[in-house]
Amino acid sequence: MNIEDQNGTTVLRRTDQKLPKRTFLSMLIGRPLATADAPHETIRKVIGLAVFASDALSSTAYATQEMLVVLMAVGSMAFGLVFPLSLVIVGLLTIVTISYEQTIHAYPNGGGAYIVSRDNLGEMPAKIAAAALLTDYILTVAVSISSGVAQVVSAAPELFDYRVYIAVGLVFFIMMINLRGVRESGIIFAIPTYFFVVLMFVTVIIGLVRYFTGSLGQVIDPPELEMMQTTQVVTLFLLLRAFSNGTTALTGVEAISNGIPAFREPKSKNAGITLIWMSAILGTLLLAISFLAGHIQAIPSELETVISQLARTVYDGRGTLYLLTMAATTVILIMAANTSFADFPRLSALTAADGFLPRQLTYRGSRLVFSRGIAVLAIMASILIVIFQASVTKLIPLYAIGVFLSFTLSQAGMARRWWKIGHLPQDKEIKERGSTLRYESGWQLKMLINGFGSVLTLIVMMIFAVTKFHDGAYVVIIIIPILVAIFSVIHRHYMQLAGKLTMDNYGSPPPRVDRNRVILPIGGVHRGTLAALRYARSLSDDVTAVHISISPEETERVRQKWEQWGDGVRLVIVESSYRRFMEPLLLYIDEIYEKRQPTEVITIVVPQFVSSKRWTNVLHTNTAAALEQELMLYKNLVVTNVPYLVD
Amino acid sequence: MNIEDQNGTTVLRRTDQKLPKRTFLSMLIGRPLATADAPHETIRKVIGLAVFASDALSSTAYATQEMLVVLMAVGSMAFGLVFPLSLVIVGLLTIVTISYEQTIHAYPNGGGAYIVSRDNLGEMPAKIAAAALLTDYILTVAVSISSGVAQVVSAAPELFDYRVYIAVGLVFFIMMINLRGVRESGIIFAIPTYFFVVLMFVTVIIGLVRYFTGSLGQVIDPPELEMMQTTQVVTLFLLLRAFSNGTTALTGVEAISNGIPAFREPKSKNAGITLIWMSAILGTLLLAISFLAGHIQAIPSELETVISQLARTVYDGRGTLYLLTMAATTVILIMAANTSFADFPRLSALTAADGFLPRQLTYRGSRLVFSRGIAVLAIMASILIVIFQASVTKLIPLYAIGVFLSFTLSQAGMARRWWKIGHLPQDKEIKERGSTLRYESGWQLKMLINGFGSVLTLIVMMIFAVTKFHDGAYVVIIIIPILVAIFSVIHRHYMQLAGKLTMDNYGSPPPRVDRNRVILPIGGVHRGTLAALRYARSLSDDVTAVHISISPEETERVRQKWEQWGDGVRLVIVESSYRRFMEPLLLYIDEIYEKRQPTEVITIVVPQFVSSKRWTNVLHTNTAAALEQELMLYKNLVVTNVPYLVD
Repeated sequence: MNIEDQNGTTVLRRTDQKLPKRTFLSMLIGRPLATADAPHETIRKVIGLAVFASDALSSTAYATQEMLVVLMAVGSMAFGLVFPLSLVIVGLLTIVTISYEQTIHAYPNGGGAYIVSRDNLGEMPAKIAAAALLTDYILTVAVSISSGVAQVVSAAPELFDYRVYIAVGLVFFIMMINLRGVRESGIIFAIPTYFFVVLMFVTVIIGLVRYFTGSLGQVIDPPELEMMQTTQVVTLFLLLRAFSNGTTALTGVEAISNGIPAFREPKSKNAGITLIWMSAILGTLLLAISFLAGHIQAIPSELETVISQLARTVYDGRGTLYLLTMAATTVILIMAANTSFADFPRLSALTAADGFLPRQLTYRGSRLVFSRGIAVLAIMASILIVIFQASVTKLIPLYAIGVFLSFTLSQAGMARRWWKIGHLPQDKEIKERGSTLRYESGWQLKMLINGFGSVLTLIVMMIFAVTKFHDGAYVVIIIIPILVAIFSVIHRHYMQLAGKLTMDNYGSPPPRVDRNRVILPIGGVHRGTLAALRYARSLSDDVTAVHISISPEETERVRQKWEQWGDGVRLVIVESSYRRFMEPLLLYIDEIYEKRQPTEVITIVVPQFVSSKRWTNVLHTNTAAALEQELMLYKNLVVTNVPYLVD
Repeated sequence: MNIEDQNGTTVLRRTDQKLPKRTFLSMLIGRPLATADAPHETIRKVIGLAVFASDALSSTAYATQEMLVVLMAVGSMAFGLVFPLSLVIVGLLTIVTISYEQTIHAYPNGGGAYIVSRDNLGEMPAKIAAAALLTDYILTVAVSISSGVAQVVSAAPELFDYRVYIAVGLVFFIMMINLRGVRESGIIFAIPTYFFVVLMFVTVIIGLVRYFTGSLGQVIDPPELEMMQTTQVVTLFLLLRAFSNGTTALTGVEAISNGIPAFREPKSKNAGITLIWMSAILGTLLLAISFLAGHIQAIPSELETVISQLARTVYDGRGTLYLLTMAATTVILIMAANTSFADFPRLSALTAADGFLPRQLTYRGSRLVFSRGIAVLAIMASILIVIFQASVTKLIPLYAIGVFLSFTLSQAGMARRWWKIGHLPQDKEIKERGSTLRYESGWQLKMLINGFGSVLTLIVMMIFAVTKFHDGAYVVIIIIPILVAIFSVIHRHYMQLAGKLTMDNYGSPPPRVDRNRVILPIGGVHRGTLAALRYARSLSDDVTAVHISISPEETERVRQKWEQWGDGVRLVIVESSYRRFMEPLLLYIDEIYEKRQPTEVITIVVPQFVSSKRWTNVLHTNTAAALEQELMLYKNLVVTNVPYLVD
């Protein structure tokens, strides 16, 4: 241990080098990392794409299918509509990507919707953005895992009945991986992401080649359509509902803007390039899959996914390439959940640091990650999976509203920021918490891009909310204001607390304590009692033992033993008429408390058996904890538990 | 307050007259009763029958039906078999009643199977009896409530889907009534018990009169038989299975022998007479119901009970008398659960007092009842109801084994007792814990009666276990040994603890504590810290403040503030490399702990915010509780929480 003395204060450095003990937990989650290690925990673009893009890319596995689910109401006309709709969605994706690329350069330390809203729009929009994002991260895990399990079930239908168990198991598996820390995540996740990208491109390219050479037919033995209403005509409402489902492809695009600090230098440039790659791959795959799915007339079903139907049509059956494609799709979806496991804890720590969530969430876990947030995310996602029985179609109406709400706020914040920059004097700099403002020429165009993106995503969000309201969107519309209200209540509490605890205007300190009156409740006279008595006498000369008498025989025995062993300390016997222990003791304490002097303090010393066999502690009453609860609000009264080790 | 001084000891009498505060709980469960009130809390025979007989009598509501469930395998032949089987069961009932009447006189303070086994057979049989009875009390609640709800569903079939919710709601309703205490229970339960007895006699008498005058037909529109296997022939195994189901009519016969102290003087005589009344009513009703059910060809079903079919056949439809009969049956079954609520807590307190269950179970609740036992019973019964979906037929195979096991042990114990009495010298008395032994002439016959009863109930138990093994009896056969093992482990722990704590062979006490070293961990410097500092200084002159440094800026602020407000107390700064708080602090404490003197004690004083708004406490880390857990096994080390009230 390295000891140093500075102005009379002792400083101990690197005291925790011996950490940690090898516990079961550390075996599961690995060796802890020191703060000094943090800068090296950054990732290259290739790895960054794998970590942050899996969410966005994996949505190609369900976006087309969920559009078809709605479109099937018009029967086989659906197959002609899915590709044009996908084109609209890719247009939207392009605008959002350009808009976010600007954000990444403006916020090199991470510019999620929360920070951008907080710095440019104020506290309330920031709280809304945080609420929207936290909700959506949970849904991302639930939807991705559910879709992943749907791919498994497509390839192995006999697992259908176990899908909920498999899904929950996978959530906890990802949780464990994430508790190990971000770098391992990167390496673990890079290979399968590229495996997926390569296999999907192989599949769609072969598919397109076979289509143009005329050798690609329709799906053989498609699953039965669950609810066919061919009588319906194509309405605008129907198209907008299908479009809403398709916009889930955009979820995950914002992930990189939160994760900029994880990239290597130059962070913004690397993150920006990664974003553009990601969007290009995403758009291409979505278009190709929708085009082919329409052509082969894939039927959306809980029993077999569209990806599975596409793959077995392209590869003429369930051969090796089919199985590899399904495995890759499953794995990327499982990996996609990881994006949320990286962002959810980071955002909740950020929100907690601003005092909107319990401060405990800001403490880092042992491996540079926010373990509490990770655990909360895993639990919430599992609950959703169980409620919605791992059905993507049932989960989708809750999804994407939060994302588009945060897109809107983030881009509105950016537009506001460009306006401020445009009105700055050329030589002035303004430092905000998340970024630095300096005049830039061309701010008008940039403001226009972000502003346009904001309005567009707002419209999409409203379409989503209206067309999906009854299917479940209302749940999210209720939850977000509730979360915002919780943030406000917590924030007010911390503000009030700080005001009450501050040393400003403290005046002169209260007088020193000059008398400590000790009360020692005893049930019997044994070695534990005597240990507590020894401790009590070390605190003060004014010690009173109190025995609550329930049976006269027992009391007589206590009195006799106390005469022998009580070391002359006064014993008070309180008779209890109701066979109760706690209430007469509290009344006795009350009496003494009322008579105390202002500079007097009362300490209640409670003997407590403890055993190294922890289970045996349920066999002993924990009087100290009960007294502490009861007397919590008494000033100048302290309850002390004196443990007596019985083995 | 009445103060008295005896040999230098202060005695405070009747200190708790001001009790209790009007809390929400006391509003729900009523004013507490003093110990002095206990003798008046006894009951007359008429009330005693209502309180203790409802379990036994109510079993007439399902015993016949459950025999028919098995017998239906042989089709309409079943209707001829149910009455003869009932005659056999009434014979068994007669023997058990005579046997228990002897027990009641031998054990005027309560002679349940546990006490009789403990005093006459030893510790292991006593543990087995306790395990068997506790299991069966829980099952009594589950079966009675389920059957009660089945009666409701018979009269109002639209409630079928809600039967599990209704059943669990009823369990908690009875729990609340029982937390109020035994006398109110008596009054509440007397009217409905007699209401049931009167209505059932009216029903069966009218039924028999109509039968003998030839005007009683068969059930109109009986429920459909769920699984008809008419091909089967009458086998001995089938008869024994049906007989096993019918023996559930005997459950509850033992209740009075546990509850003797609740009766008025002469307790044994009153209790004995009540037992005989009860058995007579039970036997008569069982025979009459079985006779009539066979004649009207009632079909056992989850949708309509046999009682419902009988009542609407006797009363020609669902008129007023039908509805009254169903209401009375429902209410008596709900009341039946109350028998267990009287006995389960009493038995667990008895078992806990002997050290086989956690001692906390012996503390009386506020209204002379054992509130903890009552709560445990309600929860366990609710779990069973949920698992078995409130189906009597599914619960029955678990039921009655425990009762017959305890019958066997109790009567074997009595037989052993008579043998001891027969071999006593005429002028000698032996005091046992539960009773007094004195020579009695005619002990041979009494021993024979109890011995015969014991063998007979043993045979019944074995028939039950064999014929019902696969249907669920194995669950009980597994649970009872597990409970016995738990009792043994708990008992060994208390024995070892007593040995370690005893003052015998204590020798000279250890030296007095002559130094108290105080460590004060501080996160920041605020009013709460200063309150803890003032307290720390009142304990000792040797106080060290410790700050775990996570960020250098924060640490610098703490150092400066401490210089101003720290009252000259030494500050140690421990640098943490892992953003952790607890581990570096524990390492620092370890270091000091290793260097301590034998007569030195270490006190860790932890400042803690508390608020009268309890919910806000989740927003603060409870460092003291965490430290206490970690340091529990350190000798001469005490963790003290100094609460600072922020509002």
